Amino acid sequence: MTKQKQQTAFHALRAPIIDLPTQNIADLAKSAFGRDDVIPLWFGEGDMDTPDFIKDAACRALAEGHTFYTFQNGIPELRDALADYLGALHQRPIERQRISVTTGGMGAMLLAIELTVGEGDNVVVVDPVWPNINGAVRIMGGHTRSVPMSLGNDGWQLDLERLKERCDERTRAIFFASPGNPTGWIMPREQQHALLDFARQRGLWLISDEVYSRLAFDRPAAPSFLEIIEPEDRVFVVNSFSKSWSMTGWRMGWLVHPPSLENSIAQVVQYTTSGTTTFLQHAGVAAISKGEDYIRQMTEHCRIGRDIVFDVLEKLPRVRYGARPQGAMYAFFTVEGEPDARKFCAEILHKTGVGLAPGFNFGPGVDDFIRLCFCRSHEQLREAMGRLEEILR
Amino acid sequence: MTKQKQQTAFHALRAPIIDLPTQNIADLAKSAFGRDDVIPLWFGEGDMDTPDFIKDAACRALAEGHTFYTFQNGIPELRDALADYLGALHQRPIERQRISVTTGGMGAMLLAIELTVGEGDNVVVVDPVWPNINGAVRIMGGHTRSVPMSLGNDGWQLDLERLKERCDERTRAIFFASPGNPTGWIMPREQQHALLDFARQRGLWLISDEVYSRLAFDRPAAPSFLEIIEPEDRVFVVNSFSKSWSMTGWRMGWLVHPPSLENSIAQVVQYTTSGTTTFLQHAGVAAISKGEDYIRQMTEHCRIGRDIVFDVLEKLPRVRYGARPQGAMYAFFTVEGEPDARKFCAEILHKTGVGLAPGFNFGPGVDDFIRLCFCRSHEQLREAMGRLEEILR
Repeated sequence: MTKQKQQTAFHALRAPIIDLPTQNIADLAKSAFGRDDVIPLWFGEGDMDTPDFIKDAACRALAEGHTFYTFQNGIPELRDALADYLGALHQRPIERQRISVTTGGMGAMLLAIELTVGEGDNVVVVDPVWPNINGAVRIMGGHTRSVPMSLGNDGWQLDLERLKERCDERTRAIFFASPGNPTGWIMPREQQHALLDFARQRGLWLISDEVYSRLAFDRPAAPSFLEIIEPEDRVFVVNSFSKSWSMTGWRMGWLVHPPSLENSIAQVVQYTTSGTTTFLQHAGVAAISKGEDYIRQMTEHCRIGRDIVFDVLEKLPRVRYGARPQGAMYAFFTVEGEPDARKFCAEILHKTGVGLAPGFNFGPGVDDFIRLCFCRSHEQLREAMGRLEEILR
Repeated sequence: MTKQKQQTAFHALRAPIIDLPTQNIADLAKSAFGRDDVIPLWFGEGDMDTPDFIKDAACRALAEGHTFYTFQNGIPELRDALADYLGALHQRPIERQRISVTTGGMGAMLLAIELTVGEGDNVVVVDPVWPNINGAVRIMGGHTRSVPMSLGNDGWQLDLERLKERCDERTRAIFFASPGNPTGWIMPREQQHALLDFARQRGLWLISDEVYSRLAFDRPAAPSFLEIIEPEDRVFVVNSFSKSWSMTGWRMGWLVHPPSLENSIAQVVQYTTSGTTTFLQHAGVAAISKGEDYIRQMTEHCRIGRDIVFDVLEKLPRVRYGARPQGAMYAFFTVEGEPDARKFCAEILHKTGVGLAPGFNFGPGVDDFIRLCFCRSHEQLREAMGRLEEILR
């Protein structure tokens, strides 16, 4: 024990674990602990509880005794419901063999990474983006290579040539989220085609995070890779019940994958989580098959929230955000004269009680950006924007 | 696409994933699909539904709106309940900082592996054992080195010298389960001390799977490493709600770890599952704080089941099992003249409708063994043993 007395067990962990980034969005939130006037717009989570028809389905399945082990790819009823849902939404047949139920959208992302990324490999990531992809790749011993988008007057733009240059011989996959968190960026159809062509030529995997797919304000769903790929293309589409069905705490999502991967995914699930909670999957069936009215309400709730926020932001001369986002649930903006958003967000919290997330969390080059989640009661958003108006002016 | 036309996407996966073993206990079960007379004793799962007081707590938490993201290490109420429970059970204080809630016992094992095992590393595994540890290590790019126990007249025995010899400079951890699945083996206290001394000297991690801890038939709980370690020892103790609380399909477990790992575990959870379903954790509090009566019933249910099975087995001259197990929920035996249990289990299924698991699933050198799960209604067990008597005689 002499050596261990000097060093804690922490020092005996794998190097990639010791090196995991420890700062995150929650840091600032922790500093507000005990304050009761805070309006929390920092997390990527709405304030709406899961609707009753989904809760009821979970309790019914529990009462019916769906409490035993089940299929690693998910219960057939949920896979079928998802196949029907995705087929109708994207106007293309999607077979059950291409769909696996996962432990949240994060679990779907991790599954894609576990299947494709080993030590020394890399994943090219379109930034700014929700940062968890970096952690997942690092846990597997790989690393990410950032391709920063740029913000113009029409919103965020991805330079595809720059992305291609970032891919090297150890690149295994390209990761992007559309609609994007924090940007609200939606990848245009022609860019999807060009990226797919490039990935096919180079034998690269695409990981398309479409968690905000239904939170598109100008159409029923954002353009999906499911609309343009062949089943055996090396493409993973990540999705989640969290956002559109208000189920963040449920930890349920799904992965669309080539049908030839069905068995490998069952194995990896067996050796990682051993599957998704059985009775919750029955609630997933209710969410998918009876959820369209709720999704419409939810999207409208966010669209109005967006406008409450941007109607104020657009009047503030120091604030810059490009264009009002057409998807997701975030405002992502800079404030002239405030290059250090981490410091500024702390000041905003202290002075106004409004909780915002500093940009450095979402990739390199956006230290001066601030993220605000507008999936929140309109009354709270109005109150928050009233409090913010002076400090952002 | 020309290349992909010849090869499916499967061929573009990581080598360790392509090489994952595809045979498992479920294979034989699949061959019985559609037969309605099968008594399934092949899986490691009882036939008892989760008790109502736990189900009710889940539905109550759901109704109360515990549907949002929560702490990565688990909700404080559950960590505190587990700390109290373990402290009382093992007569040693266990601080909340040492406990993290996980996605089942499998999730706890995987977390321990993710924290410690990288590409080229190895884990020494005491066999025969539930095989999922091998898959978890392979997903991380490592491999396992088997230390087979031997079966004598007093039951299974681990040769500690043989274990020590299997550790080399790339060994990061030693994995074992006590009470063991499929053996029922319980590691004696003096061997725990000797193993801990060795691990401390060599700076190795111990991963102690104590999922069957409460299924001990001659005492309240099997000897736990929690009773002999210091908090910062490099020891993980894996546990689960699955067996003693009849919650297999819930996917909830916990990991006891050095307190200095609390933050690293929060990070890894964030980047893998993002946590355990919030309202289910409230049900976990009910299970832990109000579950002792149920655990006693459950253990007695298994003890009687064990005796129903062994009262028949001990009369069959071809059957050999060493000693009646003092823990877990399995009979693990050979039948003289039947060296290929895979073939024999298929024959047994075909002729009697009793589903048993062939030994090869549980490690090298036990191809002639058969596992039978006795956590089952006593009526079904009697019926099964009646059907088996002739073919095993």
